Amino acid sequence: MTNVTVWNENRHEQSNPKVREVYPEGIHGAIASFLKKADLNVRTATLDEPEHGLTDSVLKDTDVLVWWGHMAHDEVRDEIVEKVHQRVLEGMGLVVLHSGHFSKIFKKLMGTTCDLKWREADEKERLWVVDPSHPITEGIGEYIELEREEMYGEHFDIPAPDQLVFTSWFEGGEVFRSGCTYRRGNGRVFYFRPGHETYPTYHNEEIQRVITNGVNWTAPVKRVRPVYGNAEPIEKIENK
Amino acid sequence: MTNVTVWNENRHEQSNPKVREVYPEGIHGAIASFLKKADLNVRTATLDEPEHGLTDSVLKDTDVLVWWGHMAHDEVRDEIVEKVHQRVLEGMGLVVLHSGHFSKIFKKLMGTTCDLKWREADEKERLWVVDPSHPITEGIGEYIELEREEMYGEHFDIPAPDQLVFTSWFEGGEVFRSGCTYRRGNGRVFYFRPGHETYPTYHNEEIQRVITNGVNWTAPVKRVRPVYGNAEPIEKIENK
Amino acid sequence: MTNVTVWNENRHEQSNPKVREVYPEGIHGAIASFLKKADLNVRTATLDEPEHGLTDSVLKDTDVLVWWGHMAHDEVRDEIVEKVHQRVLEGMGLVVLHSGHFSKIFKKLMGTTCDLKWREADEKERLWVVDPSHPITEGIGEYIELEREEMYGEHFDIPAPDQLVFTSWFEGGEVFRSGCTYRRGNGRVFYFRPGHETYPTYHNEEIQRVITNGVNWTAPVKRVRPVYGNAEPIEKIENK
Amino acid sequence: MTNVTVWNENRHEQSNPKVREVYPEGIHGAIASFLKKADLNVRTATLDEPEHGLTDSVLKDTDVLVWWGHMAHDEVRDEIVEKVHQRVLEGMGLVVLHSGHFSKIFKKLMGTTCDLKWREADEKERLWVVDPSHPITEGIGEYIELEREEMYGEHFDIPAPDQLVFTSWFEGGEVFRSGCTYRRGNGRVFYFRPGHETYPTYHNEEIQRVITNGVNWTAPVKRVRPVYGNAEPIEKIENK
Repeated sequence: MTNVTVWNENRHEQSNPKVREVYPEGIHGAIASFLKKADLNVRTATLDEPEHGLTDSVLKDTDVLVWWGHMAHDEVRDEIVEKVHQRVLEGMGLVVLHSGHFSKIFKKLMGTTCDLKWREADEKERLWVVDPSHPITEGIGEYIELEREEMYGEHFDIPAPDQLVFTSWFEGGEVFRSGCTYRRGNGRVFYFRPGHETYPTYHNEEIQRVITNGVNWTAPVKRVRPVYGNAEPIEKIENK
Repeated sequence: MTNVTVWNENRHEQSNPKVREVYPEGIHGAIASFLKKADLNVRTATLDEPEHGLTDSVLKDTDVLVWWGHMAHDEVRDEIVEKVHQRVLEGMGLVVLHSGHFSKIFKKLMGTTCDLKWREADEKERLWVVDPSHPITEGIGEYIELEREEMYGEHFDIPAPDQLVFTSWFEGGEVFRSGCTYRRGNGRVFYFRPGHETYPTYHNEEIQRVITNGVNWTAPVKRVRPVYGNAEPIEKIENK
Repeated sequence: MTNVTVWNENRHEQSNPKVREVYPEGIHGAIASFLKKADLNVRTATLDEPEHGLTDSVLKDTDVLVWWGHMAHDEVRDEIVEKVHQRVLEGMGLVVLHSGHFSKIFKKLMGTTCDLKWREADEKERLWVVDPSHPITEGIGEYIELEREEMYGEHFDIPAPDQLVFTSWFEGGEVFRSGCTYRRGNGRVFYFRPGHETYPTYHNEEIQRVITNGVNWTAPVKRVRPVYGNAEPIEKIENK
Repeated sequence: MTNVTVWNENRHEQSNPKVREVYPEGIHGAIASFLKKADLNVRTATLDEPEHGLTDSVLKDTDVLVWWGHMAHDEVRDEIVEKVHQRVLEGMGLVVLHSGHFSKIFKKLMGTTCDLKWREADEKERLWVVDPSHPITEGIGEYIELEREEMYGEHFDIPAPDQLVFTSWFEGGEVFRSGCTYRRGNGRVFYFRPGHETYPTYHNEEIQRVITNGVNWTAPVKRVRPVYGNAEPIEKIENK
């Protein structure tokens, strides 16, 4: 069974009653709740726990890490980011949600600013499937419609995705590459755009399905990891 | 359970005692045999059966088609190729092996000549994993070594693979992109190089593991297929 | 100097006065006109000329072929398509415009149906640059806006582009991968969406700039072409 | 005219007579020398200069930066790396050579360890062209052969290249993705493997040709850079 850790900064929930109303158990609680129904072994971790809840033993025991953060990216300690980075390169899956595009871990994995356009205007979003063969789209129709969401628009400053799964349309005139996969080391990364804290996006069953699919898709492959460094020749090389 | 059809031209086995000795039940028989042990529902089909064994009902009932052909590519009837092509675009997985690079179906899906360099000289081949996160490499070490195989060398005239999984080294001085994945329509395609008919390559357990992984990886995703054609506007567009 | 041949089916211009009004010299004439100003050596060819204007000597002498077709795709003779295909694989650049997505040559190069959604409703289109480093975007801002165009929507049944350069937003709720590059053999292909025959799209200076950039980007690289077939070993392989 | 800065750590040249013999003017001197013949405006910079020779004004005035480093990666100051990173994202081209795979700037752009296998055993290397349409291969045959080089072997821990241009064969049994392109922000990156300090690799005319091509290919595209941040709606969104 895949071990999933849902990490949430959990700050908006403390300071904004509107967010608390939408997510009474926190965004992490909402996500953990639907993942548990999908035959996954789920725990949560938050910023204000010791080591942000990401101790060595938790990380070692995590197959897939889900990440939501926004207003407190800078408070995530660099040494924890290093450990998460190391674990991704070793094979741990990573699902980065919404404003997590600006998290230290995502920027470190991408090598770019991960900047974008944004606007809070209660706009309709429509996430079109552009790769209908991708396991992340299992059970989803041609598009997912969200009646109101925050807009994220291009240019999104990321490396070209290994696979582009979703592209969003927004009412106000923008598009966005909203479902992107990457490989980094032995690990797989899935960025998925929706989920502004003031909207009930994570209660949407199609969004839940995509995140669940994303967790399954990023789960590590069981294999021996590559060996690096000085190597003996495999073929006999004659003395020259 | 995934339904797999292993297709083999099955001609070398008839004319060449050496091949018959290596594969007494045919190449298709050898491949079907190890796939059956992997919790897959397997049947075989060959060139000289009516409709090459690929009737409408067989194709409709096939989740993944494995393809081995070599000396009789031209005898595969165009209307059968059309049907296989249509099924791949609908979502059927396709695993193309070795000399299948020159099959009508592979060339049709690629849009290129699929030409390459080759040499029969009992050379050592070493297939290096270049994407250690890919499910097709599950259970495989850093490389697979085949003591003797036919050489295939670059330039291999294919579109850039969506994912490059293996690259081969050959004793005589060549390299080859020997494990390549593609998406075409709703279907997934995996090309895997090894398997010249005079070598016992498909008895190699690591090769068996890769082909089994490839079958599982190309198995179709369950979802509604896209709709094409004239569309009604989703947003209200004012009369202009 | 790069030799460019602009091919146009040139049928709407004959039958539809509205199209003739927008493009009095034909779509090919309009395109040739702005390309000539860009230090390119330009000629035109149309469907109803002998061999569709694409004789062996014209093709041999063409570095980049621009293709516009729509209502008469089926009238393009297969043997001419074969020759164009062969020339692309040899290195000739190909710029496919708008409804050319359904041309025989584009479908042959892609290996898929190239189907899509469409709607004629005078909708606004906005082509967002998603790859700001790409030479095809030189001189273009963040997006190109076309006040009225035909809508093309996802899912667009193409292989994942090697490079996705533009993504379109449409007023009615759809998105579309509207600028896509591919390599096929030694040749480079650029698909660019805009240009429905009843709109003055090819008179738009930004669209002209993109097409000009596309021609320059697909122009062939000067090099010896790969050799295929039976090869001598380069390294000495000991007799076994 | 493109402004190129060739950066070299320039340490082996000071401590190892063998290297000084091969490159009496330093590796940077050798590279600058052949680039100057290619209609490029070239300067050099080295580690021990103030700010490593990469002052704000030099960086601002550099279109393409060529990077060679090995034994002193750690001595490159982080704030200089930040500035180079920023410039790449703004559009400056970057050509990273050989052991530069472990430079701070390359690791930062890749987001991975960039680790690999290596061996110093005077092995033959053959760099096969796998993308014959790529401008970086202009003027090059099917492969480049280097009689003796250091071996670099897979797994090379990099993100999947946007374009894989060369793959190397080594005498001792390894392969390596030896010519890789990436886009990061508005900038283009080319990694090219050859060039161990004790071999006369940068005197090889084909290697010189590839590096020159790489400089030209990574040169920035002239365009307005994307705007990020809070955006006004382009379409009128009705009050809700």
